Order: sequence, then structure tokens, then C-alpha cells
Amino acid sequence: MREQTSVRVQELIAEIIARRILEAENIHPAYGRLWRAIETTALAGGKRMRPYLTMLGYGEYDERVVPVAVAQELLHIAMLVHDDIIDEDTVRHGKVNITGEYLETYRPHLSQSQVRHFADSAALLAGDALISEAYQCITRSELPLPVISLLHKQLGQAIFEVIGGELLDVEAGFIQDTPYDPFAIYYYKTASYSVIGPLLAGAIAAEANQQTLDTFSAFGATAGIAFQLQDDLLGLYGDPDLTGKSIVSDLREAKATYLVDEHRKHADQPMMERFERLFGNQEVSDEELEALKDDMRDSGAKQTVEQLIRSKYEEAITTLHTLPESPQRHEITQLTQKLMSRTQ
Amino acid sequence: MREQTSVRVQELIAEIIARRILEAENIHPAYGRLWRAIETTALAGGKRMRPYLTMLGYGEYDERVVPVAVAQELLHIAMLVHDDIIDEDTVRHGKVNITGEYLETYRPHLSQSQVRHFADSAALLAGDALISEAYQCITRSELPLPVISLLHKQLGQAIFEVIGGELLDVEAGFIQDTPYDPFAIYYYKTASYSVIGPLLAGAIAAEANQQTLDTFSAFGATAGIAFQLQDDLLGLYGDPDLTGKSIVSDLREAKATYLVDEHRKHADQPMMERFERLFGNQEVSDEELEALKDDMRDSGAKQTVEQLIRSKYEEAITTLHTLPESPQRHEITQLTQKLMSRTQ
Repeated sequence: MREQTSVRVQELIAEIIARRILEAENIHPAYGRLWRAIETTALAGGKRMRPYLTMLGYGEYDERVVPVAVAQELLHIAMLVHDDIIDEDTVRHGKVNITGEYLETYRPHLSQSQVRHFADSAALLAGDALISEAYQCITRSELPLPVISLLHKQLGQAIFEVIGGELLDVEAGFIQDTPYDPFAIYYYKTASYSVIGPLLAGAIAAEANQQTLDTFSAFGATAGIAFQLQDDLLGLYGDPDLTGKSIVSDLREAKATYLVDEHRKHADQPMMERFERLFGNQEVSDEELEALKDDMRDSGAKQTVEQLIRSKYEEAITTLHTLPESPQRHEITQLTQKLMSRTQ
Repeated sequence: MREQTSVRVQELIAEIIARRILEAENIHPAYGRLWRAIETTALAGGKRMRPYLTMLGYGEYDERVVPVAVAQELLHIAMLVHDDIIDEDTVRHGKVNITGEYLETYRPHLSQSQVRHFADSAALLAGDALISEAYQCITRSELPLPVISLLHKQLGQAIFEVIGGELLDVEAGFIQDTPYDPFAIYYYKTASYSVIGPLLAGAIAAEANQQTLDTFSAFGATAGIAFQLQDDLLGLYGDPDLTGKSIVSDLREAKATYLVDEHRKHADQPMMERFERLFGNQEVSDEELEALKDDMRDSGAKQTVEQLIRSKYEEAITTLHTLPESPQRHEITQLTQKLMSRTQ
């Protein structure tokens, strides 16, 4: 099911964007250029985990669910495009992102101080277009109209929650006098639209019962948080060639992660001094950040997070026991076990 | 019909956002703050022309069309929020916009060089949320589901076109070696989602025939371009207390307007020298810009645009003659005549 879904999802994304490129060219070559940049980003990579989760939520492969699965992925890509603007990143999946492409396009026409702003503006519009395409994708499905209506509401809820998560994640980086629970951020920024949303969309498409929806919500909350905890670790200790992320940017940006919370609790005096000096400091050297990473291992914080990831994934698998024995339950369990040892 | 629509539209916008504020507060007070900023912007002002056009496209007041009308307005507000980021504006309708509000909120926590970026990031997320709410609004309507499906597609087309228009408008300001037809920009940036979109949405809700849809498209293209030409003039020669826009920002930003094209064609040597020196120059004084405005009057450019506005609106009224005599046709004609002499 994963392979078939992945192939068809890739095809449908390519088809939707190819049509938009033609329509955009028809308006103006400059608009065609924006859609070609969207195409590069949308087809560049990603694990297509969300579409697979959608099909898993549905329970078996069904052609009518492919657009619903693609909608989850388009929303994800839209959020990455806007997230890159917020994080001031120009690389994604090891390639220049939309801002990066437009830096090249606009550089001959703008001063150094202006080019970034306008490249970001192009990426801003690209993300807007992708949010809309996610909705259009659901409209395109041949599922019954009352189901489409429920899927639209579900997509709206996912968007509402991920925007909240994104905002909290941003503010936690610089507002110190208000508590931002990292687990709330993980839930809203990741679990909600990356795991719960896709599973629920599939289940809604299958007109599943409330018990199944509740199980997927519980499973997704736990597995989604584990997934984000892994992302935090992979961002620091993973292989950047595999993850496509530049290492240690979370530390430079003072991201409020559980790993950092744990380190703060267990670091000794010299570790704490180093932490205070380096964390959130944009100017620190790679060497200093490596020392900080070593500290976070030596304080035990890394191991605590690794244990938590394992126990969260195991808890997630347990929640599935409320579902009847089925190939669906079996495959979701298998995926969860695979995610436990992911390196990218 | 206008008054009734306007009152109900205001109520529904307030109701939708009030519910979202509660849900967002439930996630985190910081997310509640974002929705309160959205509330301030969404209820602050605007003529609610798009909802009125939606109801006019429908033909009579109908409660089921109110959410469809509100969707047009929410899309408009979303585009204004993102447009302000692109234009680096912090004021809208004479009040601070979302970026402006967040500048105050974030200032105690951030350095001078960072605060603008993060205030813009909050506004970016607010605009994303509003695009999604526009779709949700249509889903909320009690019109038949096949109609809802058509309305979603229509909204998607409007979003696709306005993003193109916005991009062209931005690029025309700094890319000189590619022609950007100002009328294409007016069509895609304004006419499409501000006039054609709302009228078509109303007509689709009424399950109107193809002839009516075609007439509204033709009417909207012409009236919408006239409307944007007026905006260009009001931005320069209008009363900023009425328009809520800071005067002459178009000149500082080198906006590619038809007024500027005409001025370029008819300016004499000294006018042209002044134009080359001042247009697109962020540093010029208010006095110099007043001189430029006088030049654009003396070259005849202003009068040419005024004449074009009148003839476009008259042409728009003529296209309505393909519709049968009806209160609907009468009221659209009246609105067009009123728009001809608008001062805000």
C-alpha cells in the first residue's frame, strides 16, 4: 500500500502543478516561474508519510482517497515553505528552497538589502497558493459530497492547530516570561496535522465509527510527539545528508525543545555556563556547538529523550489495541515500529 | 439589501472569530492573542463591497448566501494582511495592522533588528489562518452540497488569480527588462477576486445560467479595472483620512500604474528629469512628491486616467444589458454609478 500510494501521490502532485504552471504561464511568464519553483519544492523529496497515513487511516488502497492524501502533503509543503520564511532558511531537503531560488532570480534587479525581502515575498505567495491547493485537492476527490464536506472541516481544523503550534514554537524562542510547554508545541506543531490529521482524513473518507476516530486521535497525539522528539534529536545528532537539515540550527535559534529542558535540569556548573553562553547565540562557532552537543549527551538529556521516544511509540502502539485485529491495525503497528528506528 | 448584508456579514465575521479566539485561548494565550489581532483587523473597516457584490450576484438577500459573502471578505482580509507584509506597511484603515500590533507585543523581547521579522511572521500566520477560514465559511453554508463544491472551486480560482496578480504587481516594481502590462495586473490583482469572484460566487449560489456568469465576468473585468484605476488616483490625490492609506507610497515604491505610464508618455523634458530622479526613490521629501503629483496633473496623465475610469464604468454598465430587466440588474447598475464618484 505504501509504495502504490507514494507513486500515485507523486503523480497527482505533478499533474496538479503541471496544470497550474500552464494556467500561470497563460497569465504571465513571471507567474509560471512561481509555479515552477513550487513544482521543484513539491517534487523534491519528503517521505510522503502523511499520504501514507491517510491511506492507512482509510484502511486499504482506494483511488478516491489519493486526492485526500495529496491534500495532507500539500498542506505540509505549504507549512514548510512558510516555516522556512519564519526560520530564515534557504535550504530544504538539501536543495535551495523557494526563497533560495528567488534570491538568484531577483538578485540582478535589487540591492543586497532588498533582495531577501522580495524573495521571501515570492515564497509567501507560493505558500498561500499551496494552502488553497490543499483544499482544492479534497474538492477534486470522487468521494460522496457529505464526506468531502467533513474532510474540508477536518482540514480546516488541522490548519487552525498547526498555525497555533507554529506560533508557539516561534514565540517560545524569544519570550522567556511566559511558559511554553514543549509538549503542547509538539502536539500542535507536529502531531496534529502530521499524524492525527492524515489518519482522521482517511478514517473520515472510510466513514469509520467514532471509536476508530478516537483511537487515531490518541495514537496520533502520542506517535506525533515521538516523531517530533526524534526530529529534534536528528536535527542535532543526525546525518545532515540524510535529514536534509543543517545541523545545530535549533541551538542557534534557541528552540524550546524537551532536550534543552532536560539538559537545563541535569547540567553541572561548567555545562550550564557553556549553555548560557552558547544557546541562542547566532555567532557561535561549529566547534563550540559540538561541545554543547557533547554536554547534552553527557548530562544524560539525550538518553532521556531517546527513552521517551521509545516509550511514546510503544504507548502509541498500545492505543491501537482498541481497534479490531485487521490488516489496517497490523500495518499501522509496523509503520510505528519502523519510525522508532528512523535516521531521517 | 446592502445594509442588511453588511450587518449580517459583520455579525458572522465577529461570530466566527470570537469562536476561534476561544479555541485558540484553549491552546495557549499566545494563540488567543493572534486571533484577537485578527479580530481587530477583520472588524476594523473596509467597505464590505465584496459581500454586497456576492449578494447582488445572487439577486436578492438570502441568509444561506451570507457565509459565501463572508468568504469573499475573509479572502480579501487575508490578502491585505499578506500584502502589508510584502509592502512593509504597518498601518491599514488608519490603524496599526497585525504587524504593527506585534511590533508592540514583541519589542520588549527582541532586538531592534529582529522585532520586525517576527512581527511579520505573526502576520504571515494570521493571513494563512484567514485563507483557510474563507474556505471553512463556504463549507458552513446551508446551500446544496453540489453548489458548495462549485463555490469551493470558484474560490480556488480567485485565490490562484489574485496570487498571480500580487506577484506581478510586486515584480513590476523592480524588474525593468520584462513588460508587465498594468491592465493585466489590475485584472488579476483586483478585478478577479474583488468583483468577478464575488459576483460569480453569488450567481453560482443562485444556480444562474451560463449567460449570467459570462455577463458578470465581463462586467467584473471592466468595473474591477476601473476600481483599481481609482485606487491608484485616490492613493495619490485622495484624502488619506478617507482612504486610510498613506499618500504617495505608490510613487516611493515605483508601482507600475497606468497613470505613471501615461505620464511617461506625455511629460516634457523638465518633468521627465524630475520623474527619473524622484520615482521609486525612498528618500524623497513630501514636498518633492507633491511636485511630482502636480507634474502628473499638468502632463494630462491624471485627466486621461479619470476619463478612462468613467468610460470603463460606462462600458461595464453596458455589458449588463445582456441580462433581463430586473431589480438585480438595476441595483448593480446603481452601485456602478455610485462607484464612479467614490472618494474612498
